[in-house]
Amino acid sequence: MDYIEILGLVAAFFTTAANIPQTIKVLKTRSTKSLSSVTYSMLFTGMLLWVFYGIERDDVPIILANGIAAALCGIILVVKLLALLKGKRGE
Amino acid sequence: MDYIEILGLVAAFFTTAANIPQTIKVLKTRSTKSLSSVTYSMLFTGMLLWVFYGIERDDVPIILANGIAAALCGIILVVKLLALLKGKRGE
Repeated sequence: MDYIEILGLVAAFFTTAANIPQTIKVLKTRSTKSLSSVTYSMLFTGMLLWVFYGIERDDVPIILANGIAAALCGIILVVKLLALLKGKRGE
Repeated sequence: MDYIEILGLVAAFFTTAANIPQTIKVLKTRSTKSLSSVTYSMLFTGMLLWVFYGIERDDVPIILANGIAAALCGIILVVKLLALLKGKRGE
């Protein structure tokens, strides 16, 4: 493994694990007022597309990183949409 | 360009453009209460690392997608950190 591969793995770790504190915060506080539902819908869609891309390319790191991130963004999206449905606009 | 490349480009479009509505929302409302500062710090760091990765691999789509996303996440992070500094905790 050369240093470029290690750089890619560290980058993937950061952009994937980054979603963990936001998911914990949303689950603990149920506060989603500042979150954009369009952003999380697009992130969720885009990450699922990256998973399909990874499957086609047989690229396990892309599948794993985006699969985990999609699951976390999916949780945030569900909490946000439930708040919107309740008419609370995520307050 | 085969369909796998197109799939990757569409995925990159979604995960990059996803950051635009969140950035607009934060700039318009200045509301960052629900946003995790740890998440945006990690996203910003990770995206910059992806840019360096793209430069090393001579991969223009990776450089562009992550460069744009890093700039948008950087704006959100600055607004969040300014709110934290003002002691408003991003209300």
